[in-house]
Order: sequence, then structure tokens, then C-alpha cells
Amino acid sequence: MEHPGTLKKLFLDDLAVGDTFTSATHPLDADQVRRFAAEFDPQPFHLDEAAAQASLFQGLAASGWHTVAITMRLLVDSLPLADGVIGAGAEISWARPTRPGDRLSVKSTILSITPSRSKPDRGIVVVESVTSNQDGDEVQKLTSKIVSFRRR
Amino acid sequence: MEHPGTLKKLFLDDLAVGDTFTSATHPLDADQVRRFAAEFDPQPFHLDEAAAQASLFQGLAASGWHTVAITMRLLVDSLPLADGVIGAGAEISWARPTRPGDRLSVKSTILSITPSRSKPDRGIVVVESVTSNQDGDEVQKLTSKIVSFRRR
Repeated sequence: MEHPGTLKKLFLDDLAVGDTFTSATHPLDADQVRRFAAEFDPQPFHLDEAAAQASLFQGLAASGWHTVAITMRLLVDSLPLADGVIGAGAEISWARPTRPGDRLSVKSTILSITPSRSKPDRGIVVVESVTSNQDGDEVQKLTSKIVSFRRR
Repeated sequence: MEHPGTLKKLFLDDLAVGDTFTSATHPLDADQVRRFAAEFDPQPFHLDEAAAQASLFQGLAASGWHTVAITMRLLVDSLPLADGVIGAGAEISWARPTRPGDRLSVKSTILSITPSRSKPDRGIVVVESVTSNQDGDEVQKLTSKIVSFRRR
């Protein structure tokens, strides 16, 4: 089933493997990149255009942790789990840098659903969230283990 | 080798499996928790004490992405790679919530070093970074694939 920005709150019972969820778009600018970097990842290639040109990134690039934080922001509004998006763990890979000027969006797909053996009110849902830029290039793949609850 | 907050810049050639790096401490307060959540993870259990009490977290908890962002901040100063801490990917698990009042620190250990076959000037270093609170409880384990360069 495709869930294009649905607002209906979903319980574990409502989810099926293969379901997809498409987020809104986040426009990223150099100010946001530098502000996040200054607080959490103050490395020259995230802060200064000239230093970034001379680095592996060959131009100002967002911290990968900034890309994942924006992805979370987009997920909160596009994956409407009734009790919230609560992660137990995650795997991340960054395919290419995220740049000022990028417009990011996230498409999430449910990969698996595993009812808890010890806690019958919940299960673990594995969700793959691909973050892409305005050219459709993948910048990040996030695979999250999310705790989801049954309808009460 | 133990590297307790060393300032010497390290190249791939300087690293060995088993080397450890200890960070400074970051004091977390409710203001920081709410500020990060408002921008990147606006869910009630990260924003509002009463809503958090009624949630799985049973009290205000930092976004896991906030914990990882703080971890990165501590890593930038404690893992002094000459060309910066540049991640290709990572695995994260959150063992318990991070709370306002927590004082976080990170201990990193080099798990493996793999020279690149195609690019002789660099290698991939796998680093496990355990983030703990002031009671020594693990709040997060981050395993990162970091690109590291040889001395030029």
C-alpha cells in the first residue's frame, strides 16, 4: 500500500511488508549546514567553502548527521505511527555528499515486521528510508528498527 | 595504545587495532533536548515532560539523533584524524534513553583497519564508540566506517 503523506495514525496491525511512505521536501541551505556543523560537527569541510574545496568533499557538504537529522524530521511527518517513531537501532550509509541548495525527500519502505515474543502489545518494524536530492540521486540510506504498538 | 584527548594529528599509518580514545564530557540539559527535538524530531516524548511520562520513555528523553550528534561533537575533538572524521556509514544502537541532566562521554576503540585496494593513499577504519552517562551506563553504541588517509 502507498501512503503519500497520510495523516491517519497507524498501529502495528495496519502495517504490511512493502508499504511505502513518501515525505515532503526539505530545502537545505548553506546557513543550515554551517549552523548544524558549528554545534555538532565542526570540521572545516562542513563550515568553510574554501577549506571544503580542498577536502575530499570538493565543496561545502552537510554533516552526515545533519542529513540523518533532516531525514528524521521528514520521517516524523510521513511515517504516522500512532505511538511515534521510536528507534531501537539503525544502519546508515552515505552514498554521496548532501550540499547547500539540495532539496531532500525521503521514501520509506517496510522491509519486515516481527511481533515481540515477550511483549504481545508490540513488534519491531524494519524500515528502509532512502533520502534523495532534487535530481533523484540517493544521498543516504537509513535502515531503522522501529518499535510499533498494536491497536488497543 | 591509549589516546586520552591527544591533540597530535593521526594518519592511517599511526593507528592500530585496539587503540582507544577517550572524549571530554558533554552536560545535557532539558533546553538542549527540546531545542534539538523542535528542529529535527518534534515528538511529544522529546518536547514535553508530561507527555514523556505517559510514553514508553517514562520521562523526557533526548532524540537518539541528538545523542548521536553530541557523540559526533565529542568524537571530533577526541579522535584527531589528520584529514578529519569522515564517515562512509555507521551502525547505531540505543541501549537506554539519554536524559536531561546526563553528562555524556565517549570511548572509542579501533576494531579494524582495511587498506583500500583501489586507492593506496587511504583505508577504512572501523571504530566502535560507546557513549555513556555519568553513572557509566551505556546509552548508545556507534560503529562507524571512517575514511583515513596515509601520511603524505
